[in-house]
Amino acid sequence: MEVSTAESIHRYWQTANARDWEAFAALLHEDVVYTIPQTGERVGGRAGYTDFNATFPGDWQVEILRVLAEGDQGVSLTAFRLGAQEQTCITFFEFEDGLIQRIVDYWPEPYEPPARMSKYVERD
Amino acid sequence: MEVSTAESIHRYWQTANARDWEAFAALLHEDVVYTIPQTGERVGGRAGYTDFNATFPGDWQVEILRVLAEGDQGVSLTAFRLGAQEQTCITFFEFEDGLIQRIVDYWPEPYEPPARMSKYVERD
Repeated sequence: MEVSTAESIHRYWQTANARDWEAFAALLHEDVVYTIPQTGERVGGRAGYTDFNATFPGDWQVEILRVLAEGDQGVSLTAFRLGAQEQTCITFFEFEDGLIQRIVDYWPEPYEPPARMSKYVERD
Repeated sequence: MEVSTAESIHRYWQTANARDWEAFAALLHEDVVYTIPQTGERVGGRAGYTDFNATFPGDWQVEILRVLAEGDQGVSLTAFRLGAQEQTCITFFEFEDGLIQRIVDYWPEPYEPPARMSKYVERD
């Protein structure tokens, strides 16, 4: 059965939320590489990357806010929630033979903006 | 002439890099809304959002690293460079009638990772 890129991204988060690590691992290429450019961290291989997720502490849940897919690439915008904490996560996916081969995660944090030159900027 | 979502996103950054604000504004819906969720900032309207970009200080240039488009939505991953500084920028676009109607920018910064439970995590 052919599964679309967008559908695989939805399954990725659904199986993670369900802690169904067998179904999660089945979405991954054996040589999947996961990176977090902000920290320089990297996890390689299906077994290692599944372990990284399975051992991630806490009763976290991920809400999918947006998924875009084009061919064998896709991106998700999600809200990662742990208790009262919420973090935004943006994840780029690359697929090969219908399996996730490359995952790049970004975790943007709130920050204090610089002074703006334009008078048109409003702030919540 | 019909211009694709991906092509419009490329033009958006190309015209910004060229400081061609007339061509930049022509890509935008009159009621475009730009937001930065990390700061709570918001700029509304074609004139205001063009001004925000035109007044952004410094001799910055943006390199497009990745563009994904699906229908009337798209995302770009870019490197924003100002002198020796480089920042990662992730931008979600929504189009209406071929014009950019909604722009959401994320600016993830480097951070020190927490202790990881998995032994499979490597670091640069």
